[in-house]
Amino acid sequence: MMDEKLKLENIRNVLIRQEETIIFSLIERAQYKINNKIYEPGAFEIQDFDGSFCDFYLYQSECVDSKIRRFTAPDQYPFFNDLPKPVIPLDKVDSPIINTAININQKLKDIYINQLVPYICASGDDGQYGSGVLCDKLCLRALSNRIHYGMFVAESKFQNQTDEYLALVANNDREGIMALLTNEEVEERLLARVKKKAATYGQDPGDVTNSYKIEPIHVVEIYHRWIIPLTKQVEVDYLMERGRNYQC
Amino acid sequence: MMDEKLKLENIRNVLIRQEETIIFSLIERAQYKINNKIYEPGAFEIQDFDGSFCDFYLYQSECVDSKIRRFTAPDQYPFFNDLPKPVIPLDKVDSPIINTAININQKLKDIYINQLVPYICASGDDGQYGSGVLCDKLCLRALSNRIHYGMFVAESKFQNQTDEYLALVANNDREGIMALLTNEEVEERLLARVKKKAATYGQDPGDVTNSYKIEPIHVVEIYHRWIIPLTKQVEVDYLMERGRNYQC
Repeated sequence: MMDEKLKLENIRNVLIRQEETIIFSLIERAQYKINNKIYEPGAFEIQDFDGSFCDFYLYQSECVDSKIRRFTAPDQYPFFNDLPKPVIPLDKVDSPIINTAININQKLKDIYINQLVPYICASGDDGQYGSGVLCDKLCLRALSNRIHYGMFVAESKFQNQTDEYLALVANNDREGIMALLTNEEVEERLLARVKKKAATYGQDPGDVTNSYKIEPIHVVEIYHRWIIPLTKQVEVDYLMERGRNYQC
Repeated sequence: MMDEKLKLENIRNVLIRQEETIIFSLIERAQYKINNKIYEPGAFEIQDFDGSFCDFYLYQSECVDSKIRRFTAPDQYPFFNDLPKPVIPLDKVDSPIINTAININQKLKDIYINQLVPYICASGDDGQYGSGVLCDKLCLRALSNRIHYGMFVAESKFQNQTDEYLALVANNDREGIMALLTNEEVEERLLARVKKKAATYGQDPGDVTNSYKIEPIHVVEIYHRWIIPLTKQVEVDYLMERGRNYQC
């Protein structure tokens, strides 16, 4: 019997609802300028910390998230390693996916800071550093959750086509796995849906200029260039591990 | 010369933009059930902490916010008192408002937990405790910022009608102050605008059932019952202090 969480209809609903969270958080970040200073290590003099202002806030807030056991959930992956232990008792979570070391948050953060933020924010500095990093945390969390949810997608696909994936894994055929898990029609539908949502949520219904808080095509491109490829990378990584550890 | 931040046009733009942040955060919270357990002190066994799960998270995250000097900004007010000092050097902020001890976050939190959450969330428990308190923090922060921005509104009004307010303060006439600062036409326009925004942002443009993630009328009522009255309470409190400390 397939775990409820792995049923395609349920995965689909999670991914669709995450679109709102992603778009809302991008709209929030886009109200501030790039504020490069928050990403430069040493630009702020921070007690006992060498990294950037953004990293400081992200690390500190992940310490809090870790204390409330966020990262024991199978769909939450941290950006930092040396986090404190949970201070509340752990729930026994029946994870529908296997345990792996997959975490592509470093790559995601690099793309986010160097490509995504300059893509959606006006250039320059408005001094809104605190507000900026608060939004960064929300954006990175929303993007990371979406991308690592690829493991749920992959597990579901693996259970539906076990033999096909096992054969590809045995041949170390990452391209074959990528081809088998790719459904271009679904991707097209996703991009069309995201465009509509971005146009809806990014407008101000009272604003006669009809300008968007974030260009809908930018949100489409964020999915096309980064979210979908990174999700599929997670899926391939997961399927490789899943296949290698498979016991008949 | 009036401070840029106090010009009515600028205040209006801030308040209008805050509507998005408030509506987005309410929509995010409304996807989870009430989860009463997160508000009950002692319901979670938390190391070295007696309060509720929500208070634990809110306090811990305010400690982080305080370290990055959030609460030195004239438009940010904490829910907790004993917060750590900033770990980055303070900017010299020229505050356009006078320094007061005004902070109605306790009242806000009480209303939020006991009235607002049950109003927008489905009853029951879905086990999404971590996600719930993360949303609570965003909602409380957005609401608190909006409500305490009343001090900027009040300062602007005070500078425009100094003599009228001074006379009312001299008579300790809080009702008179409330009447003078109230503009029902502006409030009606605000409620109409918020309803339109909630209907726009709370829909799923791809969902044929046309259901809302949060009922637009609920957002209107949240403004009508709580946000507007609490903002006006902050305005009156501020004007009383402003008048009493006024030096001709």
